[in-house]
Amino acid sequence: MTSGRFLHHSEGAAHTIFPGVTLRAAAGEHLMLSYVTLEPNAVVEAHSHPHEQAGMVVSGSARFIAGEEERVLKPGDLYIIPGGVTHKVIALDEGCVALDVFHPVREDYL
Amino acid sequence: MTSGRFLHHSEGAAHTIFPGVTLRAAAGEHLMLSYVTLEPNAVVEAHSHPHEQAGMVVSGSARFIAGEEERVLKPGDLYIIPGGVTHKVIALDEGCVALDVFHPVREDYL
Repeated sequence: MTSGRFLHHSEGAAHTIFPGVTLRAAAGEHLMLSYVTLEPNAVVEAHSHPHEQAGMVVSGSARFIAGEEERVLKPGDLYIIPGGVTHKVIALDEGCVALDVFHPVREDYL
Repeated sequence: MTSGRFLHHSEGAAHTIFPGVTLRAAAGEHLMLSYVTLEPNAVVEAHSHPHEQAGMVVSGSARFIAGEEERVLKPGDLYIIPGGVTHKVIALDEGCVALDVFHPVREDYL
């Protein structure tokens, strides 16, 4: 490709991955962005995938558990989760919005 | 690694890459997050790199030019810039904060 691509997160491919957990995903060649919205107290159940995952909490807050690390993350907090590490996310009472990034692209979110 | 890593963006490695353009970077194995702050009217001059770059505007606004595409991006807008594509960013009057992501990791931002 010889050019960049711009879009609003609402234009991404929509998926509901757990009750109260929706995302909008957009992919490049090696990177995928996923704008994730968790309703209050929604849970991303413990899971793992070979893809490396990183991101930032945009609004609200959630308890992130990744391997042996656990922390409540708030806006501006970053997370880096190696491929294969089991992780779980539990939104607190206000819900949570985060921008996730994956490498390689998650084909299941296209 | 068997665990995740959590940090506030202010804990990342600090770099000033152009006048009025500062970033804080944190890397995983294949992904790098870079929290970039552009002061009002600051400019990321046209440049390119082999790394694929993507991200989202967090606050403020800026004119993004990537190859033949050009658009003013605001909070919640995403960008995906293939490796090798020349790009430039010009913050508007309110300045701009964006979360950049790179693959592979930019060794110059560690």
